[in-house]
Amino acid sequence: MFHNVFGKRETVLRLSSGDTIITSTADAHGFDSQMREVAQRPNPLTGPFFVDGAQPGDTLAVDLEKITPNRREGWSSNSIDPSIVDPSFAGALPEKEYVQWQVDAKGRRLILRDQGWKHARLQLPMEPMLGCIGVAPKEGQLLSSMTSAEHGGNMDWRGCREGTRVYLPVFEEGALLYIGDGHAVQSDGEIGGTGVEISMTVRLSVHLLKQKKITWPRAEDSICIYTIGNARPLFQALQHATTEMIRWLADEFQLDTISASILMSQCVRYELANVFDPAYSAVCKLEKTYLSNSGVLD
Amino acid sequence: MFHNVFGKRETVLRLSSGDTIITSTADAHGFDSQMREVAQRPNPLTGPFFVDGAQPGDTLAVDLEKITPNRREGWSSNSIDPSIVDPSFAGALPEKEYVQWQVDAKGRRLILRDQGWKHARLQLPMEPMLGCIGVAPKEGQLLSSMTSAEHGGNMDWRGCREGTRVYLPVFEEGALLYIGDGHAVQSDGEIGGTGVEISMTVRLSVHLLKQKKITWPRAEDSICIYTIGNARPLFQALQHATTEMIRWLADEFQLDTISASILMSQCVRYELANVFDPAYSAVCKLEKTYLSNSGVLD
Amino acid sequence: MFHNVFGKRETVLRLSSGDTIITSTADAHGFDSQMREVAQRPNPLTGPFFVDGAQPGDTLAVDLEKITPNRREGWSSNSIDPSIVDPSFAGALPEKEYVQWQVDAKGRRLILRDQGWKHARLQLPMEPMLGCIGVAPKEGQLLSSMTSAEHGGNMDWRGCREGTRVYLPVFEEGALLYIGDGHAVQSDGEIGGTGVEISMTVRLSVHLLKQKKITWPRAEDSICIYTIGNARPLFQALQHATTEMIRWLADEFQLDTISASILMSQCVRYELANVFDPAYSAVCKLEKTYLSNSGVLD
Amino acid sequence: MFHNVFGKRETVLRLSSGDTIITSTADAHGFDSQMREVAQRPNPLTGPFFVDGAQPGDTLAVDLEKITPNRREGWSSNSIDPSIVDPSFAGALPEKEYVQWQVDAKGRRLILRDQGWKHARLQLPMEPMLGCIGVAPKEGQLLSSMTSAEHGGNMDWRGCREGTRVYLPVFEEGALLYIGDGHAVQSDGEIGGTGVEISMTVRLSVHLLKQKKITWPRAEDSICIYTIGNARPLFQALQHATTEMIRWLADEFQLDTISASILMSQCVRYELANVFDPAYSAVCKLEKTYLSNSGVLD
Repeated sequence: MFHNVFGKRETVLRLSSGDTIITSTADAHGFDSQMREVAQRPNPLTGPFFVDGAQPGDTLAVDLEKITPNRREGWSSNSIDPSIVDPSFAGALPEKEYVQWQVDAKGRRLILRDQGWKHARLQLPMEPMLGCIGVAPKEGQLLSSMTSAEHGGNMDWRGCREGTRVYLPVFEEGALLYIGDGHAVQSDGEIGGTGVEISMTVRLSVHLLKQKKITWPRAEDSICIYTIGNARPLFQALQHATTEMIRWLADEFQLDTISASILMSQCVRYELANVFDPAYSAVCKLEKTYLSNSGVLD
Repeated sequence: MFHNVFGKRETVLRLSSGDTIITSTADAHGFDSQMREVAQRPNPLTGPFFVDGAQPGDTLAVDLEKITPNRREGWSSNSIDPSIVDPSFAGALPEKEYVQWQVDAKGRRLILRDQGWKHARLQLPMEPMLGCIGVAPKEGQLLSSMTSAEHGGNMDWRGCREGTRVYLPVFEEGALLYIGDGHAVQSDGEIGGTGVEISMTVRLSVHLLKQKKITWPRAEDSICIYTIGNARPLFQALQHATTEMIRWLADEFQLDTISASILMSQCVRYELANVFDPAYSAVCKLEKTYLSNSGVLD
Repeated sequence: MFHNVFGKRETVLRLSSGDTIITSTADAHGFDSQMREVAQRPNPLTGPFFVDGAQPGDTLAVDLEKITPNRREGWSSNSIDPSIVDPSFAGALPEKEYVQWQVDAKGRRLILRDQGWKHARLQLPMEPMLGCIGVAPKEGQLLSSMTSAEHGGNMDWRGCREGTRVYLPVFEEGALLYIGDGHAVQSDGEIGGTGVEISMTVRLSVHLLKQKKITWPRAEDSICIYTIGNARPLFQALQHATTEMIRWLADEFQLDTISASILMSQCVRYELANVFDPAYSAVCKLEKTYLSNSGVLD
Repeated sequence: MFHNVFGKRETVLRLSSGDTIITSTADAHGFDSQMREVAQRPNPLTGPFFVDGAQPGDTLAVDLEKITPNRREGWSSNSIDPSIVDPSFAGALPEKEYVQWQVDAKGRRLILRDQGWKHARLQLPMEPMLGCIGVAPKEGQLLSSMTSAEHGGNMDWRGCREGTRVYLPVFEEGALLYIGDGHAVQSDGEIGGTGVEISMTVRLSVHLLKQKKITWPRAEDSICIYTIGNARPLFQALQHATTEMIRWLADEFQLDTISASILMSQCVRYELANVFDPAYSAVCKLEKTYLSNSGVLD
């Protein structure tokens, strides 16, 4: 069972806080590990997973423990999207076609098959990630798996990889978690409109944070904390992410607005997750070293 | 002699391609290494340096060899700029004031003096950079040292640091290089509207690339190549940088548009240099490893 | 029965092409003609009306024949939204409160009650319109009555007034028409975030255009044809509307792209419907005189 | 003598407040009434006119009394600019070429010559206007005649026509007024990148308003008052214009911010002057009837 919207749909599995699951995702065109077409385009989602006890106003933490391509073939676009270059240059871009990549699982590399590439061989390191992760959106909406908003969605953020914990605001009973749209690798911005699209085996665990309210998705890994804004224009996505970081520093690190401003004005970094989807995704990040008691913030 | 515009002004020094100079910059408010007010706000520029033989259609390469704060005191804003948060949050930001930082040159650290900071002590690693670097702009314009365009300018890019070579398109005879606006450290985006502002001693060398035409500033260091777009909205800056990267891959690395698209769609990263100045600056970057003959692109 | 989303919901009435109905709308806060709270915020919608025979790929034409405030009291915001002024000016705006307006139905005027207005009396001519008109959106989504997209929605366009025919693309069987959010008057852009909000009695008729495919909402009245783009940023809304106008001139007026370009480049006008909602709405319009056989286009 | 920048250049004529002049402008490619190439591209400017006594902080009012095409031939682009349509549609636009128009001065009409137009004959009513009007910009800059800012410039606003008074903020001694870039007609937005470009004879008078400080250009005619914001993105141009209207209502009509908000939220209209030039121009307007003592604001 796959869905092409985030929102209230029949539960596929009930989870309790702390549970770990192993599941799989089809690729963005609906093909699974056996290259069978098992779901409809675009971006079929695995889920929803109902988390017992989750209520609007809570936060769902999702630990991405393992994200592994489960077949040998991925595909990507051969062209940067025309929206992402100067309008006067758009005409010089190729007609969009798909190119194929072979997975060298052992070497954790992707090898471009020969179409359209003038050089002998292009090999890239694999960096598996999930393009889609989200819960049911606010206001009873059903939102397409092509877009993103406060609930997460198709953020196409490279940071949704092994070792990352993603925090999502809960808007519906049970949260209703969905995942999908695995990429074996992807640029910042997903400027081709695709990563190397592939089906995945995913192990994740969920943790319910009761009465913990966040406005936009947050994340952390061993190095950084992250806030994610999803909107157009790009600058608005950045405003959302920046504002959410101020809130986070207040919520959990006891920094008033001046202190957060002083720190952030010298130390934040931004990542552009996607600049292709109907909502763009910008990420504000801060190294945890600035938040520890080890002589920096003490 | 300082200037507050980029453009045709009386030359301070004539250089030949290959020359190295050591010079200094005043801080953004016009104060020098002795805390004397030697120049007018905003962003007084050191220059212009006339490069013999430079003609429109050439490119000027500037190697930033050494950028060193030359005094013990820097200053920064205490507030994120209201334009960079959600409009509904802007009212919660502090009134803009300046806070002072002490330079620990030996430890290469900055220590916040106590105003406005609720915690005992904030120390940040120093990462000196130049907010302003540019040549005379196109079409005979004089453009304020607050903004940026094809000629460079106030890009406030963290990458303008030691070890970076910056490439600027030449629009006027002699190129007319200016530098200024040193920051001891700065976030991505310069979201406070300032870095830690300080006067600098700068060693740089210039190299003239005759009949080498570029459209937007480029740069490289030992790890990456970079293209920089300067514009509002942010997305347009990104379009300029992305388009210039396609051009660079064609110019010097023999990648046709399809090959460049395939590579860039999986491998580029973006940096947001500034999202505060009248023109925002977005940077597209690509690791050199993808451009070498060492098994990746061969 | 009211809804706060556009999409598949239980039909309130089945219509055939050509049918006329008289119905009513609650105001944006859910109050009806008797000032009873009959529906939930925000923007409760009347509908859906199922149009027999409507299939994806068809177009639904809706003639707005009569839009009449059906009570004596309306309300509006007392403040321009902070997003719509310079960020540095946002702090000078008042705290948002509501002010009341009295309807002089006979004189077709609105009279501001005295709160917050320093002058003796403000009277405005009434120009009743519907903020919300739309059908079920594409891709099986349920979209909030706060936003708009290809299906119409909360476009807050002053042109949704008596005498206008609105064309909407059909995405679901039966089209599923909804209306709501009446304004007795409203600025361009809905810059206060509200018009003068009021419940309405509405007479409209529907006409099904089989196998007539449009991409964005269109409209016409006795003077002009209109195309409407809904998106952020504002410029993208304008791109959608402009592109749809080129398509319309090709579809129905036999103008190739060059001819459409020549005509539009000298003759189109734009209206800004809203610059407040999650998607902004821009309108491209062209006087019918340029499309007639009367000596202009012949 | 023509210039391609706004800023400090040698004065062509000194005027006193109240003086009227009759002058002429070359077309955007530098051709005059005799079709002689008398100036360089782009947008050669007539001026600067030095206004005695004008100082930074004053306002210069310019009455556009007469704007008359002074030859029989105009030209325009045959294509909407690719930046103004959906990126995916840009490839369908024609290669940019110029088409010619004949001036029927008596009938005040423009007649398209046959190139590229599939229909028998396109005639448009003439609405002569000036694309460029401005003074020397702030901060000692020289700004290209292709762009606009606080000083005016290439705003390409249809409202710069006979009967309009334009107000410009003075940044340099003498104000240094320039005009140019006449259009016999033009769409909203100048979406083709040109109007019908033609040389003009212009009669205007200047009036100096001492110690009257405005931030952005303003204008008025017999019907409306107007404020003009020049910036990218479009939304920022609109923010500037909206904010300047609030200031104007405070300055001269004694409306506090709440009163201005209430009035503007129901009554302002917007015009898009240009969405093509490096800075876009948005116009906020308000009918004078709302500002009179005749029962509306009393």
